[in-house]
Amino acid sequence: MSRRDDAEGEPLTYADAGVDISAGEQAVERIKEHVRSTFRPEVIGDIGGFGGLFSLDPASRRAPVLVASTDGVGTKSLIARLTGRFDTIGIDLVAMSVDDIATQGAEPLFFLDYVSTGRIVAETIDDIVAGVAEGCRQAGCALIGGEMSEHPDLMEPDEFDLVGFAVGVADADELLPGNVGPGDRIVGIASPGLRCNGYSLVRKALLDRDGRVLDGPAWKGADHSLGDELLRPSVIYAPTLVDLCRGVEVHALAHVTGGGIPENLTRVLPDHCAAVVRRGTWDEPRIFAEVQRAGGVTDGEMQQVFNLGLGMVAVVPEGDTHAALDLVRAAGHDAWDVGAIVEGTGVTIEPE
Amino acid sequence: MSRRDDAEGEPLTYADAGVDISAGEQAVERIKEHVRSTFRPEVIGDIGGFGGLFSLDPASRRAPVLVASTDGVGTKSLIARLTGRFDTIGIDLVAMSVDDIATQGAEPLFFLDYVSTGRIVAETIDDIVAGVAEGCRQAGCALIGGEMSEHPDLMEPDEFDLVGFAVGVADADELLPGNVGPGDRIVGIASPGLRCNGYSLVRKALLDRDGRVLDGPAWKGADHSLGDELLRPSVIYAPTLVDLCRGVEVHALAHVTGGGIPENLTRVLPDHCAAVVRRGTWDEPRIFAEVQRAGGVTDGEMQQVFNLGLGMVAVVPEGDTHAALDLVRAAGHDAWDVGAIVEGTGVTIEPE
Repeated sequence: MSRRDDAEGEPLTYADAGVDISAGEQAVERIKEHVRSTFRPEVIGDIGGFGGLFSLDPASRRAPVLVASTDGVGTKSLIARLTGRFDTIGIDLVAMSVDDIATQGAEPLFFLDYVSTGRIVAETIDDIVAGVAEGCRQAGCALIGGEMSEHPDLMEPDEFDLVGFAVGVADADELLPGNVGPGDRIVGIASPGLRCNGYSLVRKALLDRDGRVLDGPAWKGADHSLGDELLRPSVIYAPTLVDLCRGVEVHALAHVTGGGIPENLTRVLPDHCAAVVRRGTWDEPRIFAEVQRAGGVTDGEMQQVFNLGLGMVAVVPEGDTHAALDLVRAAGHDAWDVGAIVEGTGVTIEPE
Repeated sequence: MSRRDDAEGEPLTYADAGVDISAGEQAVERIKEHVRSTFRPEVIGDIGGFGGLFSLDPASRRAPVLVASTDGVGTKSLIARLTGRFDTIGIDLVAMSVDDIATQGAEPLFFLDYVSTGRIVAETIDDIVAGVAEGCRQAGCALIGGEMSEHPDLMEPDEFDLVGFAVGVADADELLPGNVGPGDRIVGIASPGLRCNGYSLVRKALLDRDGRVLDGPAWKGADHSLGDELLRPSVIYAPTLVDLCRGVEVHALAHVTGGGIPENLTRVLPDHCAAVVRRGTWDEPRIFAEVQRAGGVTDGEMQQVFNLGLGMVAVVPEGDTHAALDLVRAAGHDAWDVGAIVEGTGVTIEPE
């Protein structure tokens, strides 16, 4: 890749302005196999059209409702940049959007990604999209489109941002939240790490205030690095949630992202219902205590910003609690009965 | 809005880390009416769910195919930032994605937007989303979801990026490109401005090299500013294209974005077909000549980077040319017969 200096009087080119079209073409060439590895039978055509095509069997649902969501990875991208490891952040990207649509009762169908960067480096894009494709395979959705955009004047050469879009389908009468009511139990599903939330606070607490380094141990005695811990890919719950909705009665699902358990659980509560969640009923991964101690963060703030080890919660009738726990555990996730729906308003997090 | 300094030993909060959740909530409150103004009857529920919901009538198409695209506005966002005018860039955002799916023969159904910024300012978000909603109303699609993300460590406070995502539907046998063949004519549809492409080169030529200022005249004698000219919203062709496909036989549509007419027209040509486009057959808006002169840009480079006044081209059978021109003009766009499909390969742009 060569770049000419911008000599006064010489004809300006797009490359002079910092945009390298050939790097983009190389990157597209490299990612094709990753993209194809996600295709489902419904995908029409190949990479390179103006839009991605996904054929929908009109007989597959009685009253099909499309469910769509968009999200990014927040400043977790900065950890990828600082460690130079770009092959898992795409998994996080897929998790954020597909788990949003799965909480509505939808089966993820397809995904699109958008990568902006200061300078397109084919190897980096290749790693990023490999992660997106891995996430799509885990979620069972097809990666049918995407865009790479070079912003030489707006971003540092190695800076990047990722945005994802997921579309799924549900039958109208299966949409969630459904009939949440007092007596229902709250099943928490494990997140072994931070997912994508609170990274500005995490960096401020661990790196700035406590002076830790990403290639040092995650904590005293840990045999993995802090970088590994902070880059831990988000669990993709969608396939387990689809199975859960088929296997038991599910009244609601809440994806625990920004706002923590209180804000996200509130979104699925009807007016007359409150939720009570008791800490100590599930295993909280060590990273949360490390951030809290390093930053002297209050319990209240921790609960508002982080998932605290529950990346997803399901509201089920009391009689389905054990079946729900068994089903989620059989899918490979830890799960616990963490609380209940009661009469009232709001979400209360009871201390241990 | 208040921010505490980060005093050593004081408990860290998310606000200390630069993320202001209440500003986000204020912004969401402000945009609700814009968002609702775009709703179609198929939209289920309101703002605030984990995903947007759009009900699809399974009887409306014989073999429905979902068509999806994602795109951003490139560094046109920087012009909005430099001029402090944020209420039209959302129109550009919608144009980029919905016109991509319309070129596949699809009717746009819904749209989602993603805004990232260094600091969420409710007024700015309100302006941006007002533009997105205006674009959605022009395109006839519903704005069913979106995300705002605050990246205090990655972006300047007033810096922002926009990403859009559109989904439409087509019948499988109406997908484009179709049966393009020698003898077909190429109808060009007017773009009065730059749309969203080539802005890095535009800034380098006009602002850096030629020393022009955004609040000065667009060119000598112009009664509008350069800022107005560079912020001119992209035309949204989608509704006209849907009507065009109903009114005449359309063999292909090509959205002229990055890569210009040659690269985008190439994408819809079958192996044995070439396209010949003759300059001088359409009106080229003055801005293109201004950029070319200021940057000393070659004709070849101009053609590879800019739309040169044709934001969309349609390939139609020769016998449908006049009907196509009439239909597009009746919809309010200038349109011209700009060339033909011939035997061969590649796209040739003939000089005037």
